[in-house]
Amino acid sequence: MAQNIYDDPGFFAGYSALPRQVEGLAAAPEWPALRALLPPLAGARVLDLGCGFGWFGRYARAQRAAEVLGLDLSESMLARAAAMTDDLAITYRRADLETAALPEAGFDLAFSSLTLHYIADLAGLLARLHRALRPGGRFVASMEHPIFTAPSRQAWTLGPEGQPVWPLEGYRREGERVTDWLAPGVIKQHRSMGTLLNLLITAGFRIAHVEDWVPDAAQVAAQPDWAKEVERPAFLLLAADRD
Amino acid sequence: MAQNIYDDPGFFAGYSALPRQVEGLAAAPEWPALRALLPPLAGARVLDLGCGFGWFGRYARAQRAAEVLGLDLSESMLARAAAMTDDLAITYRRADLETAALPEAGFDLAFSSLTLHYIADLAGLLARLHRALRPGGRFVASMEHPIFTAPSRQAWTLGPEGQPVWPLEGYRREGERVTDWLAPGVIKQHRSMGTLLNLLITAGFRIAHVEDWVPDAAQVAAQPDWAKEVERPAFLLLAADRD
Repeated sequence: MAQNIYDDPGFFAGYSALPRQVEGLAAAPEWPALRALLPPLAGARVLDLGCGFGWFGRYARAQRAAEVLGLDLSESMLARAAAMTDDLAITYRRADLETAALPEAGFDLAFSSLTLHYIADLAGLLARLHRALRPGGRFVASMEHPIFTAPSRQAWTLGPEGQPVWPLEGYRREGERVTDWLAPGVIKQHRSMGTLLNLLITAGFRIAHVEDWVPDAAQVAAQPDWAKEVERPAFLLLAADRD
Repeated sequence: MAQNIYDDPGFFAGYSALPRQVEGLAAAPEWPALRALLPPLAGARVLDLGCGFGWFGRYARAQRAAEVLGLDLSESMLARAAAMTDDLAITYRRADLETAALPEAGFDLAFSSLTLHYIADLAGLLARLHRALRPGGRFVASMEHPIFTAPSRQAWTLGPEGQPVWPLEGYRREGERVTDWLAPGVIKQHRSMGTLLNLLITAGFRIAHVEDWVPDAAQVAAQPDWAKEVERPAFLLLAADRD
């Protein structure tokens, strides 16, 4: 079973206080770029992998999605998500994405925000996801960027001219990275860009868009402490269509 | 017109002495990985973008390719290539890939080794290349990896534990990078991975394989000074199929 750090009380308290959890999608700086990759939502059947507090499912319903199935490993997350809606077209289910059988229900869209970097058997998940989508259905995902996850110690250092640089190492040493983020010992999976994309291709997806996301100039102007975030991408945004 | 550094006498002398130019493909450590992306060559019509000394075209003919058209900007390179073969199925032409009209001849394969990072108008080249290939034809290319080209100063530094790290910065500041490699002032183009792949997709290619190339364990054992090359990819290998 996957590590369930989100049900760790200290982690959950910290996570719940993040702006994107308090204020929703509008507080996630990568959201406009991710939203641009979505297909039309009206009438769509939507699968949300790692739904957390359910922000995306409620957005999809506001855009007239037909139904939303939200899956998450964390009971704390699902309880909060359930408490935030009485929409009967939204269903939450507890699921370990490492192993759960997904309904082969012809979903039009699978969405996953900042979850795939926790998955050890990504090939297995993508094979199940391929069967869950209808032909032509789209998968839109964000995850921590391979450049972000590669170093054993994920922290800025100073370059030869005193500028902030990201000390890249271990880019092709794929596998676990243990970081202290909100709680000690959070386990994430590092994969190179090639490995990620080739797993999608092998599973039967056609790559539609790849984005090495960094904040734009307006976002940096509004949040000056994000200035160095433009130097290396923290998030990878992907759209891929099921063959 | 593109910079023609290969006809700079100092650059050409240094370049001609590189093992991969003296000994050919077998001395290029990425060659086995690149070769694995090739379609069957027997009977294929092959276009080589940035053919240099013509090593790939001669290889393709040895694999019974039907014909090879090799294009390069450098007269010195083309003269050497022409002197190395009397095969009438190989044609060399001088061409600036930034602007040259490519024959819309239904090529089965376009190949490009370490050339695309010199091209400023990559969208334009890919649009012309799409028309030059037959439907289902493949484009196989190597180029300097975006992680390699991003920093303003492309050199290793020491990380917080004294280990070699690649000081990544400027990953999304796309455009010219001026480096001193064999000659001063060599101009290369930095693009993020997302930009490269999206340009291919927009031009009508389907991404088939992406590889962040690093030497394998046997290569490092044979060349111990390559040990840190596994920490970050120097080359990006791509295969994409024309729709």
